[in-house]
Amino acid sequence: MSNEKISTQPYKGTRDFYPEDMKLRNWFFGKIRESLELSSFEEYNAPMLESLELYIAKSGEELAKEQTYNFVDRGGRMLAIRPEMTPSVARMVAAKAGELNYPLKWFSIPNMYRYERPQRGRLREFWQLNVDIFGCDGFEADFDVIESAIRMLKSFGADESMFRVHINNRRFFNDVIAAIANTDTEGARRISKVVDRKGKVTREAYEKDMAELGVDADKLATLDSLYTMSVREATALCPESVGSGELLSLFDLLEKTGLDKYCVFDFGIVRGLDYYTGTVFEVFDEAPENNRAMFGGGRYDNLVGLFVKNAKISGVGYGMGDVTLENFLVTHNLVPNLYAAGTKVLVARFDDVPMEHYVAVTEALREAGITSTVYVGMKKFGKQIDFAVKEHFSHVVILGASELEKNIVKIKNLETREESEVSMDALAAFFGK
Amino acid sequence: MSNEKISTQPYKGTRDFYPEDMKLRNWFFGKIRESLELSSFEEYNAPMLESLELYIAKSGEELAKEQTYNFVDRGGRMLAIRPEMTPSVARMVAAKAGELNYPLKWFSIPNMYRYERPQRGRLREFWQLNVDIFGCDGFEADFDVIESAIRMLKSFGADESMFRVHINNRRFFNDVIAAIANTDTEGARRISKVVDRKGKVTREAYEKDMAELGVDADKLATLDSLYTMSVREATALCPESVGSGELLSLFDLLEKTGLDKYCVFDFGIVRGLDYYTGTVFEVFDEAPENNRAMFGGGRYDNLVGLFVKNAKISGVGYGMGDVTLENFLVTHNLVPNLYAAGTKVLVARFDDVPMEHYVAVTEALREAGITSTVYVGMKKFGKQIDFAVKEHFSHVVILGASELEKNIVKIKNLETREESEVSMDALAAFFGK
Repeated sequence: MSNEKISTQPYKGTRDFYPEDMKLRNWFFGKIRESLELSSFEEYNAPMLESLELYIAKSGEELAKEQTYNFVDRGGRMLAIRPEMTPSVARMVAAKAGELNYPLKWFSIPNMYRYERPQRGRLREFWQLNVDIFGCDGFEADFDVIESAIRMLKSFGADESMFRVHINNRRFFNDVIAAIANTDTEGARRISKVVDRKGKVTREAYEKDMAELGVDADKLATLDSLYTMSVREATALCPESVGSGELLSLFDLLEKTGLDKYCVFDFGIVRGLDYYTGTVFEVFDEAPENNRAMFGGGRYDNLVGLFVKNAKISGVGYGMGDVTLENFLVTHNLVPNLYAAGTKVLVARFDDVPMEHYVAVTEALREAGITSTVYVGMKKFGKQIDFAVKEHFSHVVILGASELEKNIVKIKNLETREESEVSMDALAAFFGK
Repeated sequence: MSNEKISTQPYKGTRDFYPEDMKLRNWFFGKIRESLELSSFEEYNAPMLESLELYIAKSGEELAKEQTYNFVDRGGRMLAIRPEMTPSVARMVAAKAGELNYPLKWFSIPNMYRYERPQRGRLREFWQLNVDIFGCDGFEADFDVIESAIRMLKSFGADESMFRVHINNRRFFNDVIAAIANTDTEGARRISKVVDRKGKVTREAYEKDMAELGVDADKLATLDSLYTMSVREATALCPESVGSGELLSLFDLLEKTGLDKYCVFDFGIVRGLDYYTGTVFEVFDEAPENNRAMFGGGRYDNLVGLFVKNAKISGVGYGMGDVTLENFLVTHNLVPNLYAAGTKVLVARFDDVPMEHYVAVTEALREAGITSTVYVGMKKFGKQIDFAVKEHFSHVVILGASELEKNIVKIKNLETREESEVSMDALAAFFGK
């Protein structure tokens, strides 16, 4: 049945995780879990396949179909491989809306697929940390998710020179534009769209669009100045806005808890116009060679209702891709040698000693909590040592016929090259167990 | 954009994992990882989407298409959501066949999809532990994977009254049939097919099929007796078979290492005729109400070559579904109260104390490694206590205006109902940190 045409490469835009790759990922996912669980976030998960409708409800049919892997099952159901987690978690919350114990502090690290052209940091299959608080309308929840992001990055050893949380507020954004332009909601909405595209067009085109919407040079100068203002200067432009109040409360708490050194007010953070309704933020990598938004999120006041009717529950949270985090950790030299710590013992095999004696050695070591294995094969001792070195074993146990007779083993430390004779009974003790 | 027609239920045959479900699954996957890593198995993973060809190579086009979720991407590639892990791992080994350091001891716990009618223990989305050793042709590897399965089940507290490993050998199976029927390879192959179907047809039909293949009543009686024979009695029927030698070596080592109490020779274990080439085994649940094979595996002498040419590498291993394991653990009462252990502190909130004081408490607790959160909301104290009880918090910290003035907090133990006054500086010490 073998087929010479089968490629050994993974599907375009996806990755194989060999043990070394998996060790790295397990390490950083483990640290993320630890950090979030310490703050009482709980992990959940949902199926990889969902009804396509769920994504159409958020993004419209065209985008949902274009950006997902979707197909029709034999029962005629339109399915998609999840391209993001928010619709799934909103569905889960809606399904038990009446019985859940709010506020929910939930996280997940699911794998997902986006149908797009693979490029640096954007793969077709990726894992994404999702952190959310559901059912709390106050700024305290916004603070809590931002704090969790800072704590998580700090748990890797990152400090304020390496990342910065850029914060804005969508309510404030709309209100301050309306105030400066001296226009109504609809007028402000149109101007907001132009402001949102500011970074993507020439200054000339920007000024022309603004002039057409009645924003003269003076008003434009005020709008421009928002990008360099402190949160207090900016909110002073529309002090009566609910968004201003939320921003001031949030920054006040960040200052009083000493987290302000990781944060900055940034009028340039919008995150798309149709989704978020309150706080929005993006975490930037501060490395000069990699300075850009790594991940972000914000508040949506009726998140669950966006997908499922009759379930008005707010959400505030963020999503972070595994590739982004890995790039950050590597850029800032925050990945330790994951093979350095811990004892890992290879029990070398000689053909004149029956296998059960080797099993007895690994059994004694494992019972003491020491990682070990017999060399499962029949190569010469030198090759077994090569194997041990390549596979990051710390020690090799040598048990030949002469050692067996004396009821001892030799233990070779692969780092120091020291060799010790140890009685079978003292094996675990030798490793301090 | 909300849509009243969207169902809140997960897709048929899949499950949502709410925090309680996830906690259980993380617990048992965690114990599996720990157990396997102690024996120096290393974790890997592969993409959820693979080329459909990979499954056609193993199972043929009809089965591969029928049993998988498959579709064609925009580039015309035929893809399938993985229904099993073996083809992926074989592809990965083949891709680096020349540079890997054999023998490989690898495991993975991927999610996968099978397109079948959901039923007890058989869902469309499931997780499956895969444990394999690649590149060792000796029975030691067979022993090592069987030992790993026993160790894993024992790590949950299972003992020999709860499970049994039923072991056979495909080489022995073929050889002993040929010897008893006194026929050639092709004749033995035909008889094997009938033997494999024995449990699925009436005794009458079985005897008729056998008679047609020249197996008379005497020979049939000998064949029948194999099902109750010990491994030594059975192998004595064809002592020259390589399979007999493998079985005897394996059982000899199981006896000498004391693992024989978990194992039994069982001529009824075949596991399909076209795949395995040596040792085959199935792990049975011994509970009277649930007595059946939970999972199994075996040896395939050219596993990698089955999928990709020019890569002759053997494999021996097994796969176990998450639902199967969960049923076993529940049946035998092996799931502890996962909420019992550990300190988890809710910091209750009063509206006359500024938020930063609560953040200072959680900060101090988390720095000491104690799980804690401020109650992110604004409900009355009684409701906050209800929340704490439902969410399995062990303690509630009470910090009102009067406590703040005295620089203390009250700590309420939710189990004993005891209340203690503790100074802010002594918070971590109160919890023994």
